[in-house]
Amino acid sequence: MLLLTFMVICLVNHVNAQDVYAPYRQNWLKKAEQYKPVLKETVKQPFGIVKLEKDASAFQGWKTVSAGGMDQLYNKPFNKGTSGIVVDFGEHMTGYCTFTLKTLRSDMDAPLRLKLTFGEVPAELATPFDPYPGGLSRAWLQDETVTVSVLPATITIPRRLASRYVKIEWLGSSSNFEFGFSDIQFKATTSVSITPPALAAGTPQIIKDIDRVGSNTLKECMQTVYEDGPKRDRRLWIGDLYLESLANQYSFKNDGLTKRCLYLLAGLANDDGILNANAFEEPVPHAQKSRLLDYCYLFNVALKEYVTATGDVETGKDLWPVAKKQLDIAKMYAGADGMMDYQKAEREWWVFFDWKDGLDKQIPLQGITIYALNQTYALAKLLGKENEVAEIPAITKKLKEAAHKNLYDKKTGVFVSGTNKQVSYGGQAWMVLSGVATKAEAQKALKTLPSLPDAVRPGAPYMFHYYVAALIESGLKAEAKEAVTTYWGGMVKKGADTFWEVYDPADEFKSPYNFFPVNSYCHAWSCTPVYFIRKYPEIFQQ
Amino acid sequence: MLLLTFMVICLVNHVNAQDVYAPYRQNWLKKAEQYKPVLKETVKQPFGIVKLEKDASAFQGWKTVSAGGMDQLYNKPFNKGTSGIVVDFGEHMTGYCTFTLKTLRSDMDAPLRLKLTFGEVPAELATPFDPYPGGLSRAWLQDETVTVSVLPATITIPRRLASRYVKIEWLGSSSNFEFGFSDIQFKATTSVSITPPALAAGTPQIIKDIDRVGSNTLKECMQTVYEDGPKRDRRLWIGDLYLESLANQYSFKNDGLTKRCLYLLAGLANDDGILNANAFEEPVPHAQKSRLLDYCYLFNVALKEYVTATGDVETGKDLWPVAKKQLDIAKMYAGADGMMDYQKAEREWWVFFDWKDGLDKQIPLQGITIYALNQTYALAKLLGKENEVAEIPAITKKLKEAAHKNLYDKKTGVFVSGTNKQVSYGGQAWMVLSGVATKAEAQKALKTLPSLPDAVRPGAPYMFHYYVAALIESGLKAEAKEAVTTYWGGMVKKGADTFWEVYDPADEFKSPYNFFPVNSYCHAWSCTPVYFIRKYPEIFQQ
Repeated sequence: MLLLTFMVICLVNHVNAQDVYAPYRQNWLKKAEQYKPVLKETVKQPFGIVKLEKDASAFQGWKTVSAGGMDQLYNKPFNKGTSGIVVDFGEHMTGYCTFTLKTLRSDMDAPLRLKLTFGEVPAELATPFDPYPGGLSRAWLQDETVTVSVLPATITIPRRLASRYVKIEWLGSSSNFEFGFSDIQFKATTSVSITPPALAAGTPQIIKDIDRVGSNTLKECMQTVYEDGPKRDRRLWIGDLYLESLANQYSFKNDGLTKRCLYLLAGLANDDGILNANAFEEPVPHAQKSRLLDYCYLFNVALKEYVTATGDVETGKDLWPVAKKQLDIAKMYAGADGMMDYQKAEREWWVFFDWKDGLDKQIPLQGITIYALNQTYALAKLLGKENEVAEIPAITKKLKEAAHKNLYDKKTGVFVSGTNKQVSYGGQAWMVLSGVATKAEAQKALKTLPSLPDAVRPGAPYMFHYYVAALIESGLKAEAKEAVTTYWGGMVKKGADTFWEVYDPADEFKSPYNFFPVNSYCHAWSCTPVYFIRKYPEIFQQ
Repeated sequence: MLLLTFMVICLVNHVNAQDVYAPYRQNWLKKAEQYKPVLKETVKQPFGIVKLEKDASAFQGWKTVSAGGMDQLYNKPFNKGTSGIVVDFGEHMTGYCTFTLKTLRSDMDAPLRLKLTFGEVPAELATPFDPYPGGLSRAWLQDETVTVSVLPATITIPRRLASRYVKIEWLGSSSNFEFGFSDIQFKATTSVSITPPALAAGTPQIIKDIDRVGSNTLKECMQTVYEDGPKRDRRLWIGDLYLESLANQYSFKNDGLTKRCLYLLAGLANDDGILNANAFEEPVPHAQKSRLLDYCYLFNVALKEYVTATGDVETGKDLWPVAKKQLDIAKMYAGADGMMDYQKAEREWWVFFDWKDGLDKQIPLQGITIYALNQTYALAKLLGKENEVAEIPAITKKLKEAAHKNLYDKKTGVFVSGTNKQVSYGGQAWMVLSGVATKAEAQKALKTLPSLPDAVRPGAPYMFHYYVAALIESGLKAEAKEAVTTYWGGMVKKGADTFWEVYDPADEFKSPYNFFPVNSYCHAWSCTPVYFIRKYPEIFQQ
């Protein structure tokens, strides 16, 4: 995810302000560096040549059809006539593209100019980028113009790319000579080094496919941090880290990467102790000043999950001051009536939850606050620190009771949010995960949702995760399997090699950035079926 | 110059064909390498910011006006609003452009994308390049797109550039942050290391200006070979080498470069001994297979001039076999009647002389053949080799007499060419330089030209050189000075920093390549006023 038009409210860090993490910060950053993985590099060869074809039934209206082997490109003259050829590597890759150009006939007597467009999905290659209507930087789009003065030349596109396809366009060369391509390849990188175990023999094919695509998504996003997307944003966000680390626990088991990311986020927190929502590694590790309320909470949950999975109590204790500090947020906005002042919070923070216009944040905020308090208390217990947060159970109880009293609509059996009494999938999910809903209420609410045409549906796979988690939490196993199969399976059926940042089955062109090609089509927060499928084999693997 | 649509007729070099230069070739190439100059590098700072303004009275309709110092660019936010800013370095440079980008506000959370266009003249920056109508490779045009993922960044455009101006356009960046430029600079290169002596005190200003612009042109073209143009073609052509080496003798005196180029051309000649018209240095020295008749002759003339100027008889003797071999061309096409079979020659060779559609090549070919024979004989005498070419005086005499008899129109006092009896400036020039015309006839012919509206005028500065040389040869000193002052002075008055490849006072958009921005505006063959002004001070420096 990326902040788009939302103006982040930054509490100004006065020069003289005390750094609450002063005793720890350097050590945290050192540990983050220490656990920085060495990337595994694999040279990928192209699969063949494909043609882009318009097809109303294909995802975003474009499909590829095979147009022969690489011999259709290699060592044949490349010119105006052959311009637009698309090389298919057969899989999503993150890394560096290298190719060789050679003179095939006569003498090169002028430079040549090529445009290479790297695409994760076919429509990305078929949609003109300019004039660019998108809300994010045009530079995220992966088209590069190359001028080559001398042949033979082996050229590496300097920027790291994320793509399956490469479209090559001829922009100019001398008509006195002919040149051709050879050895186009990708040096693909990931910090994943193992293959997860196979699913149970009887697992339905669609679940196997979802697991495969989800694993690929996660693998592609696991670089020197858990990136949110290798094409776009390419950085560590707490929300993505949380979901990636869950999926990682059940697949690639790269605990070192989770540890690194937790330390990095801690080391780059604000002086007042509040985490920034995301961090960059280059040119030196630094955070984007971005106070995203729900992500601060999720750091605690991710840390608790990490300690639970690894038994690495030392790291838990190291980072405990950060987790404890994030609870200030709950205290800051919890009213005497036990209700979170979500309106004040929204004025002062970025309160995200989902890419969904109009989503009312009252219930999600109330729910995640309770959830984070519970999870942090569980963490405290793992670390023997519960005396430091002895007040949590009482606060949680108060928030839960108030939530149930104020947000549950007994008549309809759903939880309602805000002044307009909005019913949303996300809202029910957080009321379930927080334990506000009893199991019976949870089942009722979740089962009622499909019958409510106005219920606000999840906008992105990120929120869909919490919805599925709530279904499982409520014991709605068949519904959980159905949700995963329908939603992520829908992407698989539409040809996804990796799961997408944004997927609305009803609108394939949906983009939070006003231009679907700038969407990320390999996005970390969409990888969580891997977690569900492998954590709950009794639900999914039969 | 560059071969455009002309298909070069290459005599096939059979694998078993004997290399007539086998005993010498490796030694020649070794010597070429040995005399490869180390380029002098100078870091150039920009002069300021300029605005492009449409002005019908300016060269090609565009001028620049000052828009302030570099503080208008440096460390100010660069964005959509400031896009299109033009940096002026105040002089033509050949080399590498480097600049630094820094974050000015907030955190860079997306790559940025810039387009940089490098221009020798203002109109080059104001004319859209696409859709590209030109006949040469689009890639000659110096616009480069750059994607920058991390700041701060110091970026060097990889290709060598030739420009005075840099237009910087914003193509995209995140609206969440601001970035700015600093330290834009050029590492300019040349193999020139001295400043030529000042002209005589009383030299008219316009002559001083022409000399200055001509010297700059030559300096810019003198890289590791005599290039024809540092922006376009960027290689060693015999015709350009000849004129550059003449100007060099009277200015920068870099004899080593002339020597290198002569050896290089010899070392890259065809196995049958005929020279190729041009050579490239990269990736390894190699010739473009291009048999250009008049340029083969001019190699001999250049070698003779080099030996005369330097006394380097050893090099002359080393390369004598090449010079002798080029005379085969004369023998091949000289008929029993003493007339060159120009039609056959044109079928079998590229016969160039000028960028001028419709120029009849009969007289120029007859003239240059005689001239080359004479010059080669003079070279033979310098080397003590006249016994090897003892037949030259007789051949020359026969060609001269036939020329006079068949091509001189006594009635009009001009020489006429071809079946249509075409009168051209170039034709008269070559009849004068060859000595076919008596001094009186020469003066008559050259003086008559301006009164003939149909006389074919020189198309490019290259042919203008021979016209001026003919005026001087005929003793028409005032006319020579006037021609230089009007023609090259015309470019100076139109703001030339360096002299142009193509200049037709009546058509500023003239282009042999169908698109004036791809013309070279720093072109070697236009530098010869330096030679005239400095060799003939009595004509020009008073």
